[in-house]
Amino acid sequence: MSKVNRREFLKVLGVGTGTVSAAFLGASPALAGDWRTGGVEQGDASDPTLEPWQVIDMEHEEKVNAYIENIGTDDIFWDRPIEYTMDGDVKVFDLTVTKGEWETESGNPRPAYMYNGMVPGPTLHATEGERVRIVVHNEMDESTAIHWHGIDLPNDQDGVTYINQPPILPGETFTYEFDLINYGSHMYHSHHNSLAQVVGGLLGAFIVAPADTRDEPIYDKDYVFALNDSFLGFTINGRSFPYTQPLTATVGERIRVRFMNEGLMSHPMHLHGMPMRVFAKDGYNLPAPYMCDTLNVAPGERYDVIIEARAAGLWAFHCHILSHVENAQGMFGMVTVLAVSPAEEATEE
Amino acid sequence: MSKVNRREFLKVLGVGTGTVSAAFLGASPALAGDWRTGGVEQGDASDPTLEPWQVIDMEHEEKVNAYIENIGTDDIFWDRPIEYTMDGDVKVFDLTVTKGEWETESGNPRPAYMYNGMVPGPTLHATEGERVRIVVHNEMDESTAIHWHGIDLPNDQDGVTYINQPPILPGETFTYEFDLINYGSHMYHSHHNSLAQVVGGLLGAFIVAPADTRDEPIYDKDYVFALNDSFLGFTINGRSFPYTQPLTATVGERIRVRFMNEGLMSHPMHLHGMPMRVFAKDGYNLPAPYMCDTLNVAPGERYDVIIEARAAGLWAFHCHILSHVENAQGMFGMVTVLAVSPAEEATEE
Amino acid sequence: MSKVNRREFLKVLGVGTGTVSAAFLGASPALAGDWRTGGVEQGDASDPTLEPWQVIDMEHEEKVNAYIENIGTDDIFWDRPIEYTMDGDVKVFDLTVTKGEWETESGNPRPAYMYNGMVPGPTLHATEGERVRIVVHNEMDESTAIHWHGIDLPNDQDGVTYINQPPILPGETFTYEFDLINYGSHMYHSHHNSLAQVVGGLLGAFIVAPADTRDEPIYDKDYVFALNDSFLGFTINGRSFPYTQPLTATVGERIRVRFMNEGLMSHPMHLHGMPMRVFAKDGYNLPAPYMCDTLNVAPGERYDVIIEARAAGLWAFHCHILSHVENAQGMFGMVTVLAVSPAEEATEE
Repeated sequence: MSKVNRREFLKVLGVGTGTVSAAFLGASPALAGDWRTGGVEQGDASDPTLEPWQVIDMEHEEKVNAYIENIGTDDIFWDRPIEYTMDGDVKVFDLTVTKGEWETESGNPRPAYMYNGMVPGPTLHATEGERVRIVVHNEMDESTAIHWHGIDLPNDQDGVTYINQPPILPGETFTYEFDLINYGSHMYHSHHNSLAQVVGGLLGAFIVAPADTRDEPIYDKDYVFALNDSFLGFTINGRSFPYTQPLTATVGERIRVRFMNEGLMSHPMHLHGMPMRVFAKDGYNLPAPYMCDTLNVAPGERYDVIIEARAAGLWAFHCHILSHVENAQGMFGMVTVLAVSPAEEATEE
Repeated sequence: MSKVNRREFLKVLGVGTGTVSAAFLGASPALAGDWRTGGVEQGDASDPTLEPWQVIDMEHEEKVNAYIENIGTDDIFWDRPIEYTMDGDVKVFDLTVTKGEWETESGNPRPAYMYNGMVPGPTLHATEGERVRIVVHNEMDESTAIHWHGIDLPNDQDGVTYINQPPILPGETFTYEFDLINYGSHMYHSHHNSLAQVVGGLLGAFIVAPADTRDEPIYDKDYVFALNDSFLGFTINGRSFPYTQPLTATVGERIRVRFMNEGLMSHPMHLHGMPMRVFAKDGYNLPAPYMCDTLNVAPGERYDVIIEARAAGLWAFHCHILSHVENAQGMFGMVTVLAVSPAEEATEE
Repeated sequence: MSKVNRREFLKVLGVGTGTVSAAFLGASPALAGDWRTGGVEQGDASDPTLEPWQVIDMEHEEKVNAYIENIGTDDIFWDRPIEYTMDGDVKVFDLTVTKGEWETESGNPRPAYMYNGMVPGPTLHATEGERVRIVVHNEMDESTAIHWHGIDLPNDQDGVTYINQPPILPGETFTYEFDLINYGSHMYHSHHNSLAQVVGGLLGAFIVAPADTRDEPIYDKDYVFALNDSFLGFTINGRSFPYTQPLTATVGERIRVRFMNEGLMSHPMHLHGMPMRVFAKDGYNLPAPYMCDTLNVAPGERYDVIIEARAAGLWAFHCHILSHVENAQGMFGMVTVLAVSPAEEATEE
């Protein structure tokens, strides 16, 4: 739903469209670039004549430049596709489980577990009341099983090996099938040898839309924001800064973000410049939605928030455990940006 | 209140009572056992001809089998008894503090601190408005004191050494006495050399029932669910999987769980297959109870939840920090199961 | 607002004012001192004839004695002053950034980053609707920038280097200026090389009072309670027990505490003897304020609570992760006390 490409991003930023407003560029110095002339010349951080603080600055700048350069190079960051077929009224998905390599940082492949070749796996979308069938093909050299985290289903579909089912052996195919009776932002992940398999990549989002949408908030864009840590580094949707992608909005638009944590640590996610309204936890609407700018997401939790794009510019959006996001070499890990473009009237000049 | 014995558990599962429903066994493969014939023969995990993944599977299965085998072998897991006497209107408890060994895993004793020979100590039950006297006998070779965590009392009964009282020296007896003016799910634990003593075992639950029960939810069973970590491993009520015990319910029943954390880490507790309604924190009813399937419990916090047993089967119930619950040798630590039996009408066949 | 000096503290405790009530001294044994004669003579903890437990007790007592001795010796603990000027309607603050040494424990200086020579920096106070200008003088040998955490402002004032602005180079001055459009308990801190600079000391509170105070609770005292950990140890307002200062109140008074966490870890703050009513998160009033005695504060979060001083005495107030507060040498780190004096009528005798 929320695919970002570079062209869209530049349009959001008003670059290259003939509508760049001075006000916006002033509000987005990273794009204006005219202040990049302070004490540091663009150059080689290994230059021995540089002071240590100059190296720190250069490496910080390089990371941000790399982030801006990478924008639009990752089509699946926000929207992890999967085909499905209909068998009568049953929506049928296929998930193939493999071991391979995944680049949380481009050019730095790490051993990973994958659903359909991705970390996280594809996002499953269905609607409350629908019946789904997920056919799991285990092409690994070890067993696995899938737990549908947050979804109320029959016990033998719950996916804990030796509790609910036998493991899916190497080479085997196993079929899950169940009716979706509770909607919300849910997840799926391995529940076998899970410390290795889940944190190593066998995780994904399972979004169940409500049949009756009257209790849903109104919003313009919808983002799944999955956190992971440990073996694959600190990641948002399987990627580490500067290889993450921005969320985009126009001033006045409302975006929905679905946080979910599949890692081993809590991550307090902080949005700069405007608050988030938290309206659901674990797929259940809160009786008393609340505002915040820092939302602590523990392993296994999901939170749905609405952000109203308040003001134009690039707004940092990151975990506030600083050791997960920045060191002397600049920003890394769980960092991205909410890029807000001016409303139409602001650019008519 | 919620003692579990093996006979009860088997009855819950419909085994051995002549009322086993095929639907339920289908929903409880761990008990049906007919799928335990995949690629792995029951046997010796040290067999050198086994593939690594086969060893992983076997060890995973062994842990679940051990859990099922251990069910009903621990009478005090859910209900840690203590006698009391009445001195006029005062309810009098005796707590004896010792050092010794405690088996968080059967057969693997660890050095521990204990109240009345248990970790956690006995659960104290009283009612708002009641006056209690707790006579503490220190039979250790070091000093101690008890803090009544969450309970509003006079300052000299609060238990912090050198702030509220002198330490209780080796061999000494110290008497606490106070009126219970706030109800709720509270705790008691050492407040002297507490990093060693509390995490090492000097902790327990202090449940104060409200005098006026009209604000209490209705429920069929009541479980104290105390978390600890570090020196004694990752434990629920002093025991690590596969030595924990299941919660039990019949479809349609409502159970109350009182989470409390006496460890050094937060633990996001995840229930499979059905949500929890969180209605109190630290003993205080929430103005806006909310639903969740993953509840993050930080050290010192207590949460009261209601679970409505939705569907039959064995539902995993565990901390979602995977390094606290599963590794390549299978599940360990903070794992148990909610065992839900079919409702009566479902078994009449 | 909430400066504590020793004289005030002693008055709170009723010591030296001729109004010491026996009831209160009974409730404050640390001050009564008449029970300090158990098995341990005051003396030298290195005495080789002492049993290990006696050394533990002596060191525990020494820490509490040191805390009481230090009360009133730190004028800026609760109220970190800063001058300001008015330029027309603009409130102007100056912050000078330096590197130096800071004593989280008296006599134990550590390398630190500082605003105006303090850790945390001075507390900025302003009112919703006001325009503020903060002139930042970088006197360090490295670059920096300031993020106004929680404050809605124009994008080019947000302080993330290379995203919102160039770094403030060594020797440079940079001026921030913005209107305050959202009130609440906010923070400011470096957003450049932040793992070193923030955790190392570049943090402070920014309190924006509401223009319309009708939604504010009524209270008698107001405390900023900033948490930090890691490089500078476990600290409250930049100081570790026994060098922290008490909160003070009289029975029946209501105090406001503004928790804020600038560290790398969550800290569940536990108050003994009475609950806290949590009414705001990150500066936003909660729709359903709730009661608790243990409040988990994650990095970047702020919580505002009201405490009604229930009963006289010294009430421990500390992080409940025990490894942040006590070891065999006694209490350290994130510990302080709420000192509640009897109401007037109680001392008229």
